[in-house]
Amino acid sequence: MTEFTYTCLARCSCTQARAGVFHTPRGAVETPRFMPVGTLANVKTLTPEQLRGTGAQMVLANTYHLHLQPGEQIVAGAGGLHSFMGWDGPMLTDSGGFQVFSLSEMRTISEEGVKFRSPRNGDIIDLTPERSIEIQNTLGADVIMAFDECPPYPATREAVELATGRTERWLKRCMEAHHQPQQALFGIVQGGVYLELRASAARALAALDLPGYAIGGVSVGEPPELIEKIVRATVPLLPPNKPRYLMGVGTYREMAQAIASGVDLFDCVIPTRLGRHGTALVAGERWNLKNARFREDFNPLDETCGCYTCRNFSRAYLCHLVRSQELLAYTLLSIHNITELIGFTQRIRAAILDDRFESDFARWL
Amino acid sequence: MTEFTYTCLARCSCTQARAGVFHTPRGAVETPRFMPVGTLANVKTLTPEQLRGTGAQMVLANTYHLHLQPGEQIVAGAGGLHSFMGWDGPMLTDSGGFQVFSLSEMRTISEEGVKFRSPRNGDIIDLTPERSIEIQNTLGADVIMAFDECPPYPATREAVELATGRTERWLKRCMEAHHQPQQALFGIVQGGVYLELRASAARALAALDLPGYAIGGVSVGEPPELIEKIVRATVPLLPPNKPRYLMGVGTYREMAQAIASGVDLFDCVIPTRLGRHGTALVAGERWNLKNARFREDFNPLDETCGCYTCRNFSRAYLCHLVRSQELLAYTLLSIHNITELIGFTQRIRAAILDDRFESDFARWL
Ligand SMILES: [Zn+2]
Ligand SMILES: [Zn+2]
Repeated sequence: MTEFTYTCLARCSCTQARAGVFHTPRGAVETPRFMPVGTLANVKTLTPEQLRGTGAQMVLANTYHLHLQPGEQIVAGAGGLHSFMGWDGPMLTDSGGFQVFSLSEMRTISEEGVKFRSPRNGDIIDLTPERSIEIQNTLGADVIMAFDECPPYPATREAVELATGRTERWLKRCMEAHHQPQQALFGIVQGGVYLELRASAARALAALDLPGYAIGGVSVGEPPELIEKIVRATVPLLPPNKPRYLMGVGTYREMAQAIASGVDLFDCVIPTRLGRHGTALVAGERWNLKNARFREDFNPLDETCGCYTCRNFSRAYLCHLVRSQELLAYTLLSIHNITELIGFTQRIRAAILDDRFESDFARWL
Repeated sequence: MTEFTYTCLARCSCTQARAGVFHTPRGAVETPRFMPVGTLANVKTLTPEQLRGTGAQMVLANTYHLHLQPGEQIVAGAGGLHSFMGWDGPMLTDSGGFQVFSLSEMRTISEEGVKFRSPRNGDIIDLTPERSIEIQNTLGADVIMAFDECPPYPATREAVELATGRTERWLKRCMEAHHQPQQALFGIVQGGVYLELRASAARALAALDLPGYAIGGVSVGEPPELIEKIVRATVPLLPPNKPRYLMGVGTYREMAQAIASGVDLFDCVIPTRLGRHGTALVAGERWNLKNARFREDFNPLDETCGCYTCRNFSRAYLCHLVRSQELLAYTLLSIHNITELIGFTQRIRAAILDDRFESDFARWL
């Protein structure tokens, strides 16, 4: 596991923000950094070449989705996720837990694990900590995630405490099941909106000396202010020499605030989802390119952006493609949106290195 | 108009096939060559960069579609089609005639032109030879097409004769209306399946010394054998020092046979349409990548192909993307299919230059 190390390069003098590098066997990830999501072994509408052009360093894929289609054995037959999808940089797979809890109907949870009905063919699937690790070992991402129970929001303290305790016990089973030194297993702190549960889970996980730590169970419907409170209660209890990943968060304010609390990594489907709805992230706003005001606007989508889309196309052209429902619109908007969110975290990183993060990003803090 | 010239480099000793170069102000087009179709100012799912990677030299766009959306004034506002869509190579627009006759309901044809109801907003639109040229001048492609009447198949000799005569009179009106020396106006030979009508139209057009000639009104439902007969009856009557373009044809056999009769240029929506249906052109066949036989086939899509898709992805991965209905599947398959059809015409060109066309391509002749 020594191939996975986190190096801190600079700390903000006003906040807990930090700039660093997460080293993996497939390359370095400069943190803080946004990670695009490639649910089904592709970041929707983008080739790996286009994805590389967005500044993406580490990319996610989803264990739950890939287990159902095409199945991890086919991915392994191709030589693993990287060669299957043509992405040679660092990759991370989630554990499948979040999807089982949010997408599956007819699931039953026990101490052993989760049983659910496959939406693909109706088969009963058993997902346990051991099985999740086995699937993730077979998929072959660089970072794999512990199988956790993600309680819904709202949930009673009792329900969350039960889920949090189970998540800790499942983590230990994941650690025992995991024997691939070229893959780093990250633990996930749960605890819902109950800060003392978050704190006790963080302390318990910190003691395990894992190669990285995630904060899960946020962005599940709670008010955004609570995300910041949860992060602030959790991060200080995590080991300083390990990367910290806030799962499922990819909006400007939430990322900036989490970075101010010491978070390093983020992921979210928002840039590609917005792209497929004809929406671009520009100047911190969401622009619907179908809007008539763009019909004759021959400026680049975002004059401050150096992405392929902004270097080559006008708002008028993108408006035309969206109105024509041309699939190319979704590709071009996804390229921009991913570049923009990665760029946001890159600009924050540069500001932290110069110790001007709090002043330059005050708008978001 | 002197910027548009055709140079013949080699003739086949057994057939009428020829290899040459069509020079345009925006670059050379090596002929014979397949031209991808970018109906709405984009070749569906491909960026211009990806399109360039397929070997595309000259690209089409559709006057009818662009007039309806976004309207030619917006394209002109962007600086013309090339800068609007980010394609700096040679481009061609059709006249809109074919689409008016095949797509519009409630159209009335007179000697003056065609009236039809806009499918966009129900407005009555008058399309005349003069208006088509005006729109094409405004769009700014390098090659523009005369406004023609494309009779349906089947149609009586009388109906086709009427349409053919009108097409000739409309051509003269197009020539009078056209005053942009940086755009070359091609005439279109009509005549349906009546070879003597084709011959007389070809003779009449040849006398006008246009910069290029198209054969239109084929691939409208007639048996494919008839295409070859029509081409053979028409091409020998066209000037040898001008490019010849067979409109709407892009299947292997029909292209090979038309090249054997002396055709230089082709276009067809087939490679992108097949791509969007999960189908790849491989080894002269159509493969549906959804098929279970590809689930665990880790070979490149086409081992003989050097396109981005074949260099980077397996059949298993493409099968997975098609089964997952991921839009990336359509991009990757369109890249391959366009590369394949252009490559087919490139291989024929190389064979003509070596005078081995008839023997190497006997399978298709
Ligand atoms: Zn951009
Ligand atoms: Zn290929």
